Amino acid sequence: MKTIKTLGGITLLLGSMCFLNSCKPKSTENVVSGDAAEKVYVAPGKHDEFYNFVSGGFNGQMGVYGLPSGRLLKVVPIFSVNPENGYGYSEETKPMLETSHGFIPWDDQHHLEISQTNGEVDGRWIFANANNTPRIARIDLNTFKTVEVLELPNSAGNHSSPFITENTEYVVAGTRFSVPTDDVNGDVPINSFKENFKGVISFVKVDPKTGEMNLAFQIEAPGVNFDLSHAGKGKSHGWFFFSCYNSEQANTLLEVNASQNDKDFIMALNWKKAEEYIKAGKGRKVKTSYAHNKWNEETHSGSSKMEQEVTMLSTKDLKDLCYFMPTPKSPHGCDIDPTGEYIVGSGKLAALVPVHSFTKMLKAIENKDFAGEYDGIPILKYESTLHGEVQKPGLGPLHTEFDNEGHAYTSFFVSSEVVKWDVKTLKVLDRQPTYYSVGHLMIPGGDSKKPFGKYLVAYNKITKDRFLPTGPELAQSAQLYDISGDKMKLLLDFPTFGEPHYAQALPASMIEGKQVKFYDISKNKHPYVTKGESESRVVREGNKVHVYMTSIRSHFAPDNIEGIKVGDEVYFHVTNLEQDWDVPHGFAIKGAENAELLIMPGETCTLKWIPKKAGMWPMYCTDFCSALHQEMQGYVRVSPAGSSTPLVYSLNNKADNAQSPVKQGTTK
Amino acid sequence: MKTIKTLGGITLLLGSMCFLNSCKPKSTENVVSGDAAEKVYVAPGKHDEFYNFVSGGFNGQMGVYGLPSGRLLKVVPIFSVNPENGYGYSEETKPMLETSHGFIPWDDQHHLEISQTNGEVDGRWIFANANNTPRIARIDLNTFKTVEVLELPNSAGNHSSPFITENTEYVVAGTRFSVPTDDVNGDVPINSFKENFKGVISFVKVDPKTGEMNLAFQIEAPGVNFDLSHAGKGKSHGWFFFSCYNSEQANTLLEVNASQNDKDFIMALNWKKAEEYIKAGKGRKVKTSYAHNKWNEETHSGSSKMEQEVTMLSTKDLKDLCYFMPTPKSPHGCDIDPTGEYIVGSGKLAALVPVHSFTKMLKAIENKDFAGEYDGIPILKYESTLHGEVQKPGLGPLHTEFDNEGHAYTSFFVSSEVVKWDVKTLKVLDRQPTYYSVGHLMIPGGDSKKPFGKYLVAYNKITKDRFLPTGPELAQSAQLYDISGDKMKLLLDFPTFGEPHYAQALPASMIEGKQVKFYDISKNKHPYVTKGESESRVVREGNKVHVYMTSIRSHFAPDNIEGIKVGDEVYFHVTNLEQDWDVPHGFAIKGAENAELLIMPGETCTLKWIPKKAGMWPMYCTDFCSALHQEMQGYVRVSPAGSSTPLVYSLNNKADNAQSPVKQGTTK
Repeated sequence: MKTIKTLGGITLLLGSMCFLNSCKPKSTENVVSGDAAEKVYVAPGKHDEFYNFVSGGFNGQMGVYGLPSGRLLKVVPIFSVNPENGYGYSEETKPMLETSHGFIPWDDQHHLEISQTNGEVDGRWIFANANNTPRIARIDLNTFKTVEVLELPNSAGNHSSPFITENTEYVVAGTRFSVPTDDVNGDVPINSFKENFKGVISFVKVDPKTGEMNLAFQIEAPGVNFDLSHAGKGKSHGWFFFSCYNSEQANTLLEVNASQNDKDFIMALNWKKAEEYIKAGKGRKVKTSYAHNKWNEETHSGSSKMEQEVTMLSTKDLKDLCYFMPTPKSPHGCDIDPTGEYIVGSGKLAALVPVHSFTKMLKAIENKDFAGEYDGIPILKYESTLHGEVQKPGLGPLHTEFDNEGHAYTSFFVSSEVVKWDVKTLKVLDRQPTYYSVGHLMIPGGDSKKPFGKYLVAYNKITKDRFLPTGPELAQSAQLYDISGDKMKLLLDFPTFGEPHYAQALPASMIEGKQVKFYDISKNKHPYVTKGESESRVVREGNKVHVYMTSIRSHFAPDNIEGIKVGDEVYFHVTNLEQDWDVPHGFAIKGAENAELLIMPGETCTLKWIPKKAGMWPMYCTDFCSALHQEMQGYVRVSPAGSSTPLVYSLNNKADNAQSPVKQGTTK
Repeated sequence: MKTIKTLGGITLLLGSMCFLNSCKPKSTENVVSGDAAEKVYVAPGKHDEFYNFVSGGFNGQMGVYGLPSGRLLKVVPIFSVNPENGYGYSEETKPMLETSHGFIPWDDQHHLEISQTNGEVDGRWIFANANNTPRIARIDLNTFKTVEVLELPNSAGNHSSPFITENTEYVVAGTRFSVPTDDVNGDVPINSFKENFKGVISFVKVDPKTGEMNLAFQIEAPGVNFDLSHAGKGKSHGWFFFSCYNSEQANTLLEVNASQNDKDFIMALNWKKAEEYIKAGKGRKVKTSYAHNKWNEETHSGSSKMEQEVTMLSTKDLKDLCYFMPTPKSPHGCDIDPTGEYIVGSGKLAALVPVHSFTKMLKAIENKDFAGEYDGIPILKYESTLHGEVQKPGLGPLHTEFDNEGHAYTSFFVSSEVVKWDVKTLKVLDRQPTYYSVGHLMIPGGDSKKPFGKYLVAYNKITKDRFLPTGPELAQSAQLYDISGDKMKLLLDFPTFGEPHYAQALPASMIEGKQVKFYDISKNKHPYVTKGESESRVVREGNKVHVYMTSIRSHFAPDNIEGIKVGDEVYFHVTNLEQDWDVPHGFAIKGAENAELLIMPGETCTLKWIPKKAGMWPMYCTDFCSALHQEMQGYVRVSPAGSSTPLVYSLNNKADNAQSPVKQGTTK
């Protein structure tokens, strides 16, 4: 054992410095087999085989990569504003980022989960969590758009989320940073943690047809740090499993104070039982406030509503709701094998990987095989639930995914490797280094009942020299392995953005054919839609000016506007009249303290502009749309407040040319 | 000829619909040679050969790609906020996005130019333009950070920018949307365009040692649309060339009204002459207001200053400053060959590519070989300046780059192809289809005196079916060609983001070795730096609370803070004490209406937070930093306004543990 002093003088006892931080594998360059280039090359005109949906971490978005090429195909804005396409800036999208704390332009997006039917990936929606200001979002996989965001009250650090049950009955979340619940006075001393802080689990019901989410109930659990979770499946359907650390209930310097106990827990939660208790009226109503934001594809607009109440069950009152399974040490990943029998807890400070048996767990519960209680929750005996331990697996186990042949693949942060082992025999079968310090890993369908297998992607935490250097701030490094044979084969390094945590993937064929390519203009129900140039107009309502504008290759209608005054609230409602794929138009006006609009064919978007100065303000199309794109521009004249310049608007209004399609006009 | 009716009923006469929009090449899948996979594959552990700096278009950022892999290595925030790393959200970076119109979170970034010495790429800085709210930025290629942003007054649609002279004496910009200059009343009728609107050219002086930019002078030119530009080089050093369209001076429906004249112009500007006139006091002082924002690497902070005046020369008064070279039709690209002799104008509506000769131009000027005047500027005769025309080159020529063997490569938007031709003989040598509708193209060093050659990248405007579909909104498609042989060979498709316009590239060896990997903490001069945990503290100044905080694996100091009150302005000044590459820490606090901080080793960043509600607010590290990253968290207690909770802060302050390294304290 080695004694380490941190800067502040705190003494830590650990096996090696590597144990805390990351160690480079000895060789920094991997041997790849001769056909790796061919295996990852997707020739021009060909498509990738899998969509890989990768959480963006601290960029708040979702990255969509193609596999095996590793090409970033799209960034889907979820929890962070995206000036690129106006997400969070257009009037329509602003409501999607509203919370009980106000409009928030950023979050930390950690985990993704594709909807499932019968425990199999079904490709309808993908769910995403926000870690910092707790929320769950739903993205429609027909449009790659965020269509719903639900805030979670009584929570903080929404980390063990958004994992789902096998028919997407629920999306589930557990709070990482325990806090006082919203209905009590949270203005309490921080060191009253043990008394006042709670870890709350949320069950969000998903409408099986529309996908719409509603917070069904919450469960008040002890104040620990819930870390990750996964639903039971197959035989364990009806249960949910959560890893938790900080069973020490420390409120300061957790790296020391929450690393004291040899074992923390995986909490097994019987959610079918919880449903019964809710039906039986066992929950208390908790007054709170949380945002529920929905996107409407017909009006092309989002709306935000504040909800005021949630029903909460307490693990203290309901002793058969939850059970603690002791798990060494500060468990992080909590992963269930495809059969639903094996529950893998990856104690990030543990030197082995324990695997619990669901069958044994049920038996231990039946036998009341308890080692005691923790804050009212029965603790099952470690030996009673244990299927076995993977011995000498590596250092710093974090996460486990599965293939369809009974193998588990666990990431080891400290020893920088992926280790393949047999779920039943617990024998280590193969290990491959990662560059460097792998966090999450992903096998297509690897947390479902039917993994697709073939590839494994390691999402590494440290990049350093893997790519050309780009100053102090680097992209993250991902690595693609072929797992179709007995031994894993490294194929490719590719950079990723933000910081990828959990990821998902599905075969392209599952959703490729059902993509929405543009919006039918005849079905556009936006309240400010303009369905043809002849309807374009400018309407003043007090100091609000509504511009009903159209865009089509290659002009706006109207493109000359006068009579706007300093201090007016001008709303450019731009409808893209195109009806073909990949013909967006953009809209921007000089000096606006706003982002642009990027308007898909058939869509209406609104940019708000409050001009501060009189003068001449050019506007233009920001997305190259045709050979005459550079000509797609116009002017807005702004007069001083109180001036008498009449409101006029036109397109091609010239003395020698009376062909203007726009109903030119002067409005009050 | 075909008659086309647009939606509004305007009749256009054009050769074919393809001429306006884009046509798919007949075959949608390219034949690639057998070794393409090997040629683009960069094995794990190996580095790309070139850095490719790609403008982000409507995302306002710069993308850095590796070639030949096509991997996106980094997104450098320039003109748009970047919630991912707090750019535009931290107190330090907010000033970088200030303008005379206020704080602007977005712009449209079109062109990039690496600094040059003797006309050769030198890899010190890269310049970037903002199109919507005219600005030029400078990015340091040692840190990949935006270190300066200069606003351009009297301008709109800063498109023909930021092109440079051969020793980076100047960065130059021309206004695309002519507007009244800032010193006259811009509140005029839009149809007074011909009388009141001007096209202004800006010359920004670059300090040869520091790179610092200053607006040296502007030139008031006729009200047309300046489109693109390039400096003369070698024999033509001292001149700058600008394409311009809308010589019709239309102010509405430009797709028709600015497409009337058979020829528009390339403007040749004698900037050495302009320098003489400035020295001779020929300029008028124009009162205006524009922001000059600078980043200081010692204080890790930006500052913004408003400048108030610029000196302007007028082409009307100074007849030997500028000359117009007639160029068919609505010229877009304006590209100078490596020798400086040939000026290629790509009339986007022209059926040929005209090449002007600099030598002939000088002679024509000397001979006063004029065809008339345009708004006071002499028009040279087309035949007098013409080297020749590339016949039947393709449809919709846009841009031309050069290799080091006397070849030019021109992109054709409408016929979707890249065409290689001989600069002297004007013979077409090769053509390759692009998928689809290529805009800009790039050869490493391809607009310098010494192109590096080897690769050509086509940045296409239409993507459609090139990659797996991702709903209505798609990435852009780039294509990599090997140009080392006689014929161009397509190697790879790769997606790009925002909308790439012009790009640059240089051999990795030129800058790879000089990258800054972290900041020396001993040299950190941030006014709120905390250089060790023992200096961490919380200081109240009225309703402002300054938290002097440190981060190191894996804790913040302090991590427990009480005595913050609702309505306080809390400033978390977080100093990352790490001194190793690729160990950033992140910082976020629940409910903040702000982005996160991403703090590089040795750096200090500040997050402003105004708590709205009393309660318990967790904060945490958002960037996975060690095996105990999940433990890197803390709590801030917020009490109601006016409450008497004392201000206290600590790390590890427990009755049973007095090892706290933080000077625990209670401050007034």
